[in-house]
Amino acid sequence: MRSPKTPTASPEIEALIDALGKVPGLGPRSARRAALQLLKKRDLLMLPLAAALTEAAQKVQTCGECGALDTQNPCAICAAPGRDDALLCVVAEVGDVWALERAGAFKGRYHVLGGVLSALDGVRPEDLRIPKLIERANRGLVKEIIIALSATVDGQTTAHYLTERLQPLGVSVTRLAHGVPVGGELELMDDGTLFAAFSSRRPL
Amino acid sequence: MRSPKTPTASPEIEALIDALGKVPGLGPRSARRAALQLLKKRDLLMLPLAAALTEAAQKVQTCGECGALDTQNPCAICAAPGRDDALLCVVAEVGDVWALERAGAFKGRYHVLGGVLSALDGVRPEDLRIPKLIERANRGLVKEIIIALSATVDGQTTAHYLTERLQPLGVSVTRLAHGVPVGGELELMDDGTLFAAFSSRRPL
Repeated sequence: MRSPKTPTASPEIEALIDALGKVPGLGPRSARRAALQLLKKRDLLMLPLAAALTEAAQKVQTCGECGALDTQNPCAICAAPGRDDALLCVVAEVGDVWALERAGAFKGRYHVLGGVLSALDGVRPEDLRIPKLIERANRGLVKEIIIALSATVDGQTTAHYLTERLQPLGVSVTRLAHGVPVGGELELMDDGTLFAAFSSRRPL
Repeated sequence: MRSPKTPTASPEIEALIDALGKVPGLGPRSARRAALQLLKKRDLLMLPLAAALTEAAQKVQTCGECGALDTQNPCAICAAPGRDDALLCVVAEVGDVWALERAGAFKGRYHVLGGVLSALDGVRPEDLRIPKLIERANRGLVKEIIIALSATVDGQTTAHYLTERLQPLGVSVTRLAHGVPVGGELELMDDGTLFAAFSSRRPL
């Protein structure tokens, strides 16, 4: 309906709205509202955000071992003593590591692929951190590799590809269980989830 | 369900997620996703955003005349020659000025109140830029004051209050027309809008 531009605002305000509009989750309209709110609360919101952005951009780096993000390299998880070196959990993105760590469900090491294979988006094996995964699997420390990828077509294609590459190395390869999410309503589940939940049913 | 904290991420990443989560429009979960995307596109998104925030925070100020935001004071609209000094449009927020300027519907001057009167939120006349409005109305240049406030209870309360304060000064006080929005579907309109549209009907 309306143009997303605000031609009468000063170039500095327009640049701010423009930069905010590129933040994933904010569109041009919410960027305008956010810009106004930030300008109203400069010391409370705006300058701390600018400082946090600058500091994170300068200090945060990709861990050379697992591919996660941290200010130290190797990252805190790779460097932590107390974690099980025999277990390696393969995830697509750094956000997955954060989710698993929040849940506290896993105490081994991680490997972040940086995406999943996708014919549609043109993501090939060499675009992901797969050579480094093979290298880590070959070191002899890892006994089990747990593939924790999404149950989407691309996720499962990637899981199959990794299984074929990893099994010859003598490590056991497993994947996360499929089933009804805890707290999930049965009537809202899709057919694939219900099939998986039935075929993997457990004695009570 | 999950805690919004990411206890395993580095303090710099946590600070970034925290600051992003305070941007209006982004919650803690979308802030995490935004932080990851920004860290992936540092030169393209993250550093330009930090620079735009810092520059706007330093340079943008409130216009002493109308209350809008600009890098110059008085603002570009107050300083523009060619605009009609006899018409003064009263709005609640700076975003309203931007919306009206995008529409190009008005070529007079603006006055930003900085909010509307609200018994619930404890906004009293002295919390708004009303004294400055009276001062501008008293200068003799203004012939008509157009109240462009939202058709909400608080907006209309404010409009009535302003009318009572402004009419004794000898300026004519008008308000925006109420009616069915252009492009609006009749069956989706509320009763108040339909009543207003009927009572203000025009000959075709």
